[in-house]
Amino acid sequence: MPTSFPMNSGDAVYSYSKNSQIQREVLDGAKEMMKEAIIENLDIKNMLSSSNKFYITDLGCSIGPNTFNSMQHIVQVVKDKYHDNILEFQVFFNDHVNNDFNTLFRSLPVDRSYYASGVPGSFHGRLFPSRSIHFAHSSCAIHWLSKCPKELLDDKSLAWNKGLIHYVGASNVEVVNAYVAQFEKDMEMFFNARAEEIVPGGMMVLLSPFSGYRYLKFFGSTLKDLVNEGMIDESLVDSFNVPVYFPSIEDMTKVVEKNDFFSIEKIELTYPKSKLVDEADAKTLIINLTAVLQKLFINHFGNKITEEIFTRTILKSEEISTWMKINCEKACQLFVALKRK
Amino acid sequence: MPTSFPMNSGDAVYSYSKNSQIQREVLDGAKEMMKEAIIENLDIKNMLSSSNKFYITDLGCSIGPNTFNSMQHIVQVVKDKYHDNILEFQVFFNDHVNNDFNTLFRSLPVDRSYYASGVPGSFHGRLFPSRSIHFAHSSCAIHWLSKCPKELLDDKSLAWNKGLIHYVGASNVEVVNAYVAQFEKDMEMFFNARAEEIVPGGMMVLLSPFSGYRYLKFFGSTLKDLVNEGMIDESLVDSFNVPVYFPSIEDMTKVVEKNDFFSIEKIELTYPKSKLVDEADAKTLIINLTAVLQKLFINHFGNKITEEIFTRTILKSEEISTWMKINCEKACQLFVALKRK
Repeated sequence: MPTSFPMNSGDAVYSYSKNSQIQREVLDGAKEMMKEAIIENLDIKNMLSSSNKFYITDLGCSIGPNTFNSMQHIVQVVKDKYHDNILEFQVFFNDHVNNDFNTLFRSLPVDRSYYASGVPGSFHGRLFPSRSIHFAHSSCAIHWLSKCPKELLDDKSLAWNKGLIHYVGASNVEVVNAYVAQFEKDMEMFFNARAEEIVPGGMMVLLSPFSGYRYLKFFGSTLKDLVNEGMIDESLVDSFNVPVYFPSIEDMTKVVEKNDFFSIEKIELTYPKSKLVDEADAKTLIINLTAVLQKLFINHFGNKITEEIFTRTILKSEEISTWMKINCEKACQLFVALKRK
Repeated sequence: MPTSFPMNSGDAVYSYSKNSQIQREVLDGAKEMMKEAIIENLDIKNMLSSSNKFYITDLGCSIGPNTFNSMQHIVQVVKDKYHDNILEFQVFFNDHVNNDFNTLFRSLPVDRSYYASGVPGSFHGRLFPSRSIHFAHSSCAIHWLSKCPKELLDDKSLAWNKGLIHYVGASNVEVVNAYVAQFEKDMEMFFNARAEEIVPGGMMVLLSPFSGYRYLKFFGSTLKDLVNEGMIDESLVDSFNVPVYFPSIEDMTKVVEKNDFFSIEKIELTYPKSKLVDEADAKTLIINLTAVLQKLFINHFGNKITEEIFTRTILKSEEISTWMKINCEKACQLFVALKRK
C-alpha cells in the first residue's frame, strides 16, 4: 500500500481548507480553459445514450473549498452547453482513505446542483466500476508520487540525493531520473485504471503545478541551517526526499501516449492571474505549503523539529519575496485535456 | 433540516463499532430471508440490459462492522445467483452528514468485492440520481424519526407525554398517534425519494427492530428516580422524547401502499437466533443502547446527567434480565422485501 500524507484536516489556522489559495489560483486560471475544452470536446448525446446521469469525479480532492468550486464549474458548463435541465449529476469526491472526509462532507455547499459522494482510496489504483465515469478531474494532485524513489536514500546508488530534499536544485541528473521513473510508473497505473473507468468519449482534465514547489529549496536551506547548528543529524536530511514531481508537457505526453487509450485534446502551460511577489504573499505561500507538507515533515522529523523548520522558513519571507520577484515569470501550471478513445 | 444523532464514533469502549451486537443479530437473522428474497425476486438481466454495473446502497449504515457484513452478503448472493464474474458492484454507504465517515472508510474490509463510496445526507430526502440504484438496504435505521413530534412536548396538546420519554408504556393513545403520524410523514418522503432513485425492477429490503427498544422504559424509570431525588427538574423529562417508532406490519403496508411505486414481496416478523436473557446479556444490551442513544441524551441532558442515567440503568441489569426472561418471546424484527414496479 502506498504511503499518503493528507492535507491538514479540520478548519484551524494551518488547515488546508483555510490555506489553499495557491491551489485556488491554479484552478481559477484553468477555468476558462476547462470551459473551452468541454465545449469543444464533450459529446454527451453519444456518451449517455438514453440515460440522463452524468458522473464526475475529482481525484485527489482534499477537503475543499477548491474541489466544490471546480465541480460546480464543470456541472454549470455542461448544463450551459446543452441548455439541459434533465441531466442529473453525481460527483465522486476521491482522496486517500486518511483524507478528512468528515470535514469535506460537512462543508458541502448547500446549494450544489449535484448528488455528492466520497470515494476513499489511491487514484493509482481502481476506484470505480468499468465505464462508469463521464468526466474525471484532478488538480494539484498527480504530482504527488506514490512513494519516494528508494535510490535517492541509498548511499550506494548513483541517485543518492545527499544533503538535499528534492530534485529541485540537485546537480546530479540521476536524482531527476529517479523521480521521472517513479512518476512514469505511477502514471502508468493511473492511466490504466482511468482507461477502464471512463466511458468511451468521456473526458479527463488534469492540472498540475509546474514549478510551484520550487520554494521547497527554502525548506532545504532551513534544514541545512539546522544541521550546521547541530540541531539535527545530517543523516536525517539525507534520508528525506519530498515525493513530488512536476511533469513537463513532454513527460505528460509520453505517459498518455504509452497508455494509448486517451487522445490529447489540449496540453499547455498556463500562468496564474496574480503574481505573488511581496513579502506578505511570500508568507502566504509558505503557510500554504505548510498546510500541504506538514504531515509529511512530521512523519519524518517529528513535531518539534517540523515546527522549527516551518517557523524559520516563514522568517525568510523577505528573502523568498526577493527571489520570487526574479523567478516569478516561471511560475506556471500544466493543463491537460484528454478524451477517452 | 432534520436533527440527527449519529451513533458513537471512533472505536472506543462505548463506540457503536464495538457495541452493535443487537443490530448484528437482527442482520444475521435476516440473512437467509434476504437471500431467498433476492433469489426469488431479482431479475438483473432485465434491469441492467447491456451494463454490468450493480449499484447498492445501505441507508443509515452507521460506521460498521454490520454494514460491511450485509453488503458483502448481498453482493455474494447476487453473484451466486448469476454464476457471474462479469458483474461489478458499487456500494454507497449512506448516513447523516455528521456520521463518522472517516472511521467507516478506514475500517472498510480490504478483501471486499465491491467499489466503496460514502453518501452523506438524510434518507428522508433525495440522495442519488434518478434510476441509479439497483438494490437499497436499510437495517435498524428507518425507525428513527426525522424529529420528535412537537405535540408530545406541548402541555396544551392532548398528546402531551408528561413524565415519559417514549410511547412505550404510555397509556395516552394520542401519544402513540403522534408518533405514528410522524412515522407516516417521514416514510412518505422516504418512499418518494426511493421511487425516483431505484430502477424499475430494483429491490429494497428494510429491517426494523419491532420491540428492541422496549428497554427504553428502564431509562425512563431511571429518569423518574433522578426527578424524585431532586437531581433534575421534572420539566427536563417532560421536554424529552426519544424519536423512534417501531412500525408494525400494518404500518409498513400502509405507507408502501400509499406510495404505490413498490410491490411487497415479503413482509414478516422474525425472531433473532439467540435470546438475550441473563444478567450479562442485559448489561450488553444496555451498553448497546448506550452507544446508540448517548448523543441524543447528551444533547438534552448534558454530559454529567447522561453519565448518571447510563450508569444507574446498567446497575439495573438484574431487574432487566428478569423482565426480559418474561418478555423475550416478543423481541423480534420486521423484515420487508420490496420491488420497484
